[in-house]
Amino acid sequence: MPESGDFEGSEAAICSPGAGEVLLKNLYLSIDPAIRGWMSDAKSYLPPIAIGAPVRSGTLSQIIESNAEGWNVGQIVQALATWESYSVVPAGQLHGKVKPIDGIPLPSMLSVLGGNGLTAYFGLLDVGQPKDGETVLVSAAAGGVGSIAGQIARIKGCRAVGLTGSDEKCAWLTDELGYHAAVNYKTADLRVALKEACPKGVDVFFDSVGGEILNTVLTRLNRRGRIALCGAISQINAAELPPGPSNYLQLLAKSARMEGFTTLDFARRYDEARADLARWIREGKLNYRDEIVEGIEQAPSHLLRLFSGEHRGKLMVKLADPEV
Amino acid sequence: MPESGDFEGSEAAICSPGAGEVLLKNLYLSIDPAIRGWMSDAKSYLPPIAIGAPVRSGTLSQIIESNAEGWNVGQIVQALATWESYSVVPAGQLHGKVKPIDGIPLPSMLSVLGGNGLTAYFGLLDVGQPKDGETVLVSAAAGGVGSIAGQIARIKGCRAVGLTGSDEKCAWLTDELGYHAAVNYKTADLRVALKEACPKGVDVFFDSVGGEILNTVLTRLNRRGRIALCGAISQINAAELPPGPSNYLQLLAKSARMEGFTTLDFARRYDEARADLARWIREGKLNYRDEIVEGIEQAPSHLLRLFSGEHRGKLMVKLADPEV
Repeated sequence: MPESGDFEGSEAAICSPGAGEVLLKNLYLSIDPAIRGWMSDAKSYLPPIAIGAPVRSGTLSQIIESNAEGWNVGQIVQALATWESYSVVPAGQLHGKVKPIDGIPLPSMLSVLGGNGLTAYFGLLDVGQPKDGETVLVSAAAGGVGSIAGQIARIKGCRAVGLTGSDEKCAWLTDELGYHAAVNYKTADLRVALKEACPKGVDVFFDSVGGEILNTVLTRLNRRGRIALCGAISQINAAELPPGPSNYLQLLAKSARMEGFTTLDFARRYDEARADLARWIREGKLNYRDEIVEGIEQAPSHLLRLFSGEHRGKLMVKLADPEV
Repeated sequence: MPESGDFEGSEAAICSPGAGEVLLKNLYLSIDPAIRGWMSDAKSYLPPIAIGAPVRSGTLSQIIESNAEGWNVGQIVQALATWESYSVVPAGQLHGKVKPIDGIPLPSMLSVLGGNGLTAYFGLLDVGQPKDGETVLVSAAAGGVGSIAGQIARIKGCRAVGLTGSDEKCAWLTDELGYHAAVNYKTADLRVALKEACPKGVDVFFDSVGGEILNTVLTRLNRRGRIALCGAISQINAAELPPGPSNYLQLLAKSARMEGFTTLDFARRYDEARADLARWIREGKLNYRDEIVEGIEQAPSHLLRLFSGEHRGKLMVKLADPEV
């Protein structure tokens, strides 16, 4: 578990972009569980963040100088940058120009219309493949991704059931987000609660938690069930690899499937997903919440809130407004 | 681990078939790991075999009396019956009439053209979805299913690599079955051996073993890799659920998939699969081996050979020749 003392601020001169690079002014930092994953030296889709290096982070940024063709000064972009006021990055780490959408605040381009919304969209629809009338269970259901995934399930005609860690968050899921049921996994007997909340079993499990929750849900999976593995926040701080789900052979007994994904797998279809998400927001079907604090010095404590389970929706740190 | 003393022979009168039932004379018993699975009371796709009840088994049988429309006396059928000389079963447990195929011995309708061949065919091709040039790794590669799965991979243009438990079986895989490489997992350092045998990583893992082998292979899986879960014979005799694969989060890091299946999922396509398998045998591309012992009293010890890892290919017990 990272602690505030593990982080250190420092000042340095702003660098100039080399060939194929841009200088970004970072406006918002996206605070995601993936950051903790990148701090581990386990083999993954990106190299680990080196000790002493700035923390890698999704950002919403403005291009201040450009040496990269097709990227112009003044453009607002989503980027893979770091916890810095200004970052120099190669164009390959720019994930798209942000086109403001009427009625949607700029930072939400990082949340419901950014990585979180896209992760929920592709993970649920493409990996989970829910069908009308099926039961979709979502863990970390009040988080930045889960709070969107459950609503997409509901929009697609599924019974949406959420797992979260407090009664307040359960109420938020059912009263404001339209989940059909929510279970406080910290106080409930999960096996019993799942039988009540998912009386027809679980067809799709959208899982960002892993560990004992995944293991228990495996026993409630229906024939041909699908588990979309989005993350394993319960295990992300473990020093040694915890045991895997002992019930994984339920996949065999049920002809079921467990599949990992990252949003990058679907990069060609971001526009399609954003169009759907924005339409659902305009139609009032998709609700979302951003928890934004201001100042780069807030980034470590905001990251730690991810693991304390207190937050609802998406965490971001505001560094600056765009220049006009 | 079952022992000979757990089995008991007994005699009883032959029953008459009720409405919708047939009386079978069982010709061959199919000796499969699934039998051990059915002896467990874990929830699965079939109820457990009751203590004291005859052992459930795939069989090749001849219909002696019929009260079921469409099933006629004299027909040879694949059935889900029991370790009995004669069995009464409902027509729902008859899995198709056996049409003899030129040049293929009758019992092979239970092996390469029966459950084993079908399991290898659908598990590899439909669940694993290997593409030309990919690497396919097969565990229990000298077994009744694995020995077919690796050859289908080779026929489809993949690099076929087998894991098995003796140097003799390794030689059989590469010299007679056309596997490109084979690893004796009992003597090799599996991580090191996999790097050599699968220098481009593993795209498809056809797994009938589970346990530490599955856990190690997870670390060698390529992006978008597929694990077809066919069984977990390493865990089938465990009294308590062993830990799951601690490396399962490799599925997340690699956007990979682990999927269970049973042949029953593909029942409508058995004829298509049998036609392909028979053609490959005629063309000399698909080799197979049946280990047949005679006499119902041999069934328990033949079943135990499955777990000792001594056999190559398919185990069967011959009870009788068909009547003409």
